Amino acid sequence: MKSEHLDATFAALADPTRRAILARLALGETTPTELAKPFDMSLPAVSKHLKVLEHAGLISRGRAAQARPCRLEAKRLKEAAEWMDRYRRFWEASFDRLDVFLDELKKEKSRGGQK
Amino acid sequence: MKSEHLDATFAALADPTRRAILARLALGETTPTELAKPFDMSLPAVSKHLKVLEHAGLISRGRAAQARPCRLEAKRLKEAAEWMDRYRRFWEASFDRLDVFLDELKKEKSRGGQK
Repeated sequence: MKSEHLDATFAALADPTRRAILARLALGETTPTELAKPFDMSLPAVSKHLKVLEHAGLISRGRAAQARPCRLEAKRLKEAAEWMDRYRRFWEASFDRLDVFLDELKKEKSRGGQK
Repeated sequence: MKSEHLDATFAALADPTRRAILARLALGETTPTELAKPFDMSLPAVSKHLKVLEHAGLISRGRAAQARPCRLEAKRLKEAAEWMDRYRRFWEASFDRLDVFLDELKKEKSRGGQK
């Protein structure tokens, strides 16, 4: 998990249009022209967002000169999700509290056994 | 899950120093002065990063006028992780292929039963 990858991934994800483009590509690969339609955006505006996503490795582009279809790439999203996972215990604190409670219960029990 | 929350969260996470500050705060709350030490940064530089993190709701600050200790807040990280989770199937594609295989197997079996 490279720090520069995370920089580029999170910066690319910090825009609602780029997240919407990824959501569209999650349904299947498509061309920039098709991508521009539902977003009511000009092709140059979409192309700018696609460049950011491609630079971050979140999408790849086909070689066909005219169309250059875009495809979602999951690897960098996986890295970012793995980074997030380190913090999972903070929002799953209720489980932590349950663990503490169960540990206490075990200690109580073993203390009881020693009496 | 608000789009503006995701914008602010991902923008805040797109910086290695801010991610390092979150990693430090995951060990427990501390003051900006303490935070600045391992990073070899000036207090104003750290304060600037803390403002971005606080604006994104990723940390909260104590009220004590001198110290204003910083604390990690998990809620927005959770929202971002939930957004990521929508894409999990793309990097867990091997499981998807297994599901397809098992579905095919079931169909084969039921076809066999109808004969």
